[in-house]
Amino acid sequence: MVFKKITLIGRSNESFDAAVDEAIDRAEETLAGVHWVEVDELGVEVASVETREYQAEVTVAFELEAKQE
Amino acid sequence: MVFKKITLIGRSNESFDAAVDEAIDRAEETLAGVHWVEVDELGVEVASVETREYQAEVTVAFELEAKQE
Amino acid sequence: MVFKKITLIGRSNESFDAAVDEAIDRAEETLAGVHWVEVDELGVEVASVETREYQAEVTVAFELEAKQE
Amino acid sequence: MVFKKITLIGRSNESFDAAVDEAIDRAEETLAGVHWVEVDELGVEVASVETREYQAEVTVAFELEAKQE
Amino acid sequence: MVFKKITLIGRSNESFDAAVDEAIDRAEETLAGVHWVEVDELGVEVASVETREYQAEVTVAFELEAKQE
Amino acid sequence: MVFKKITLIGRSNESFDAAVDEAIDRAEETLAGVHWVEVDELGVEVASVETREYQAEVTVAFELEAKQE
Amino acid sequence: MVFKKITLIGRSNESFDAAVDEAIDRAEETLAGVHWVEVDELGVEVASVETREYQAEVTVAFELEAKQE
Amino acid sequence: MVFKKITLIGRSNESFDAAVDEAIDRAEETLAGVHWVEVDELGVEVASVETREYQAEVTVAFELEAKQE
Amino acid sequence: MVFKKITLIGRSNESFDAAVDEAIDRAEETLAGVHWVEVDELGVEVASVETREYQAEVTVAFELEAKQE
Amino acid sequence: MVFKKITLIGRSNESFDAAVDEAIDRAEETLAGVHWVEVDELGVEVASVETREYQAEVTVAFELEAKQE
Amino acid sequence: MVFKKITLIGRSNESFDAAVDEAIDRAEETLAGVHWVEVDELGVEVASVETREYQAEVTVAFELEAKQE
Amino acid sequence: MVFKKITLIGRSNESFDAAVDEAIDRAEETLAGVHWVEVDELGVEVASVETREYQAEVTVAFELEAKQE
Repeated sequence: MVFKKITLIGRSNESFDAAVDEAIDRAEETLAGVHWVEVDELGVEVASVETREYQAEVTVAFELEAKQE
Repeated sequence: MVFKKITLIGRSNESFDAAVDEAIDRAEETLAGVHWVEVDELGVEVASVETREYQAEVTVAFELEAKQE
Repeated sequence: MVFKKITLIGRSNESFDAAVDEAIDRAEETLAGVHWVEVDELGVEVASVETREYQAEVTVAFELEAKQE
Repeated sequence: MVFKKITLIGRSNESFDAAVDEAIDRAEETLAGVHWVEVDELGVEVASVETREYQAEVTVAFELEAKQE
Repeated sequence: MVFKKITLIGRSNESFDAAVDEAIDRAEETLAGVHWVEVDELGVEVASVETREYQAEVTVAFELEAKQE
Repeated sequence: MVFKKITLIGRSNESFDAAVDEAIDRAEETLAGVHWVEVDELGVEVASVETREYQAEVTVAFELEAKQE
Repeated sequence: MVFKKITLIGRSNESFDAAVDEAIDRAEETLAGVHWVEVDELGVEVASVETREYQAEVTVAFELEAKQE
Repeated sequence: MVFKKITLIGRSNESFDAAVDEAIDRAEETLAGVHWVEVDELGVEVASVETREYQAEVTVAFELEAKQE
Repeated sequence: MVFKKITLIGRSNESFDAAVDEAIDRAEETLAGVHWVEVDELGVEVASVETREYQAEVTVAFELEAKQE
Repeated sequence: MVFKKITLIGRSNESFDAAVDEAIDRAEETLAGVHWVEVDELGVEVASVETREYQAEVTVAFELEAKQE
Repeated sequence: MVFKKITLIGRSNESFDAAVDEAIDRAEETLAGVHWVEVDELGVEVASVETREYQAEVTVAFELEAKQE
Repeated sequence: MVFKKITLIGRSNESFDAAVDEAIDRAEETLAGVHWVEVDELGVEVASVETREYQAEVTVAFELEAKQE
């Protein structure tokens, strides 16, 4: 009954919404029990990519099962 | 000629933009004189809803009329 | 389906927990649909009271019904 | 014995002190039991007014009477 | 000789102290070398639980052994 | 090989994404070597415009050429 | 009629409330005119003590008498 | 239709209001389209000046014309 | 050649400027080598005083002489 | 194509630079794809060590491979 | 007699001190009257460079001459 | 068993590390029981000194003996 929080950065060529969704998708692939997500920062990478890359740093909160950290 | 600020959280299954708009819509239903809105926090509810719910906490600034608080 | 947030300060001669509870009790007396509470600040008043007064500033989030602000 | 806090923005063509006072005056017109005020932000509006308008965003703390929110 | 920090949220129906302790207990079940804990945020869940649930978000610092992350 | 950062506010009647893009477009018109952009604040202007104006304050980082500030 | 603020860290094996009280007790032993206390941070020391030590960093505000700093 | 923000520090031997005004005056000498100003920090220089110098760090927002940065 | 910083709160029935000055005056009565002052917070006490009391919390930086703390 | 961020504290008897480097070294031992590091806090441990220990808390960002969290 | 502040990021393969110095050197090449510098953030670029690149974001304050912005 | 915290600013013509060390050295000359130090801010003085002066503002935590404040 304890939550853990981790920080991910999702990336998208489309929009900030898609960048947030990508991070949540990734979290749900490997974690059961994702409860909520907080958006920490939004940014755009310009120089090292062909088209602008929208980035969203998010904190993902999920419920810990017994003895898994 | 004094402004007051209140804090609302709009929610949408579509996007953060729609969540912000929902909060502004709600403010304008009951308040005259809404001037501007600041976005304080963005988040996503995952566990307690069927589809992801985009949430936007906003501060709404509106002009106070005489003796109404 | 929009939340509103207000800020209250509960006070107690016993403990910070009791000060938080007092603020929530007060909110629930007059507001339906209280969902969650965030603790913003803790403090102790010493000079103007007989015994130390524990104070908790909290933000209360509640669901707005139609057209009530 | 619970305090509530609200956020107001006072405006003045004279000074920041007058802008703060205007917000407190407005609060005291409609609220009994104002205890203290915190200054959150100071700013100056230039473009949409004839002479510079000094603005002060303040948080006003007042004591709640029974069942009035 | 490097520390790592993780973020957990403990929950209790009794008190904030118990919520903090629950998070530390959980950390110590699976991690050796817990050194200290910082309290990041306190909150209370009201709507989705039967009795108020006190929650404490904490950061746990522990010493990393060789090549374990 | 030194970066400089400047702060711009883009505006759009469509969306926050478009407001961010407008600021980046403006930066790239006059600056070579834009590397990345950080979103500092999002807001909506309501009172002084016909339709809601979405605003994004962003910090733009670009590489300085020799002796140009 | 000027206040001064100092920062203390109280410690207790029992609770955060007791840690705060210990810091206030210590302040009142050597300072007249303590007016109020703000809680800055809560933490728990685990590794260097036998039982968990609850710690509270507080800022103590007291009224300065003439020419004593 | 993009705003730019710059940071200035005004100074005055009279008051903080005058220090803010001095910064705005300076901005308006060289910039068209100043819209608003935010006060970031207030301070007083004591040691290196004959009489106390009140200082105000402000952020000035102005509308960019085409291709001028 | 080391500076020390202390925190004082000046109070005035006239203005914020006077409240800041009162704190600096008090610091200079007992401390040699005051260099600069930063304004941390402004507030107004209303309930416990006859006329509004303007308060300014400031940090005072002064140069330490040999072996005096 | 998602980044993850973790928080480490490096320690050194030599310098802050070495403390940062130690944390990055440790991260690269167990993680592929470290992209960048942000310095969150610097501190010095004095009491529990023989010589001063410089400490650097850093956030390490690395690219997640498929299904590894 | 007004100061202006700009934000630069210096980079070095050697140390954070050298990264700060590089930013100051760059500022002094093109600006007269640099007074002081504040370090805002330290970081290390790892992935896109051959050897670790230490980066320092600094704010440079300089005195404005008449009518030069 | 209570800690107290004070704020010092160390200065050096060599490096930030030396500036931090100078502040700790100064604290240990007059205070027994220094436990740890937190670095609050780094800066460089340029205009009023012959060579760049690196400055480090630090918070020093030390254990209070009985009745000494």
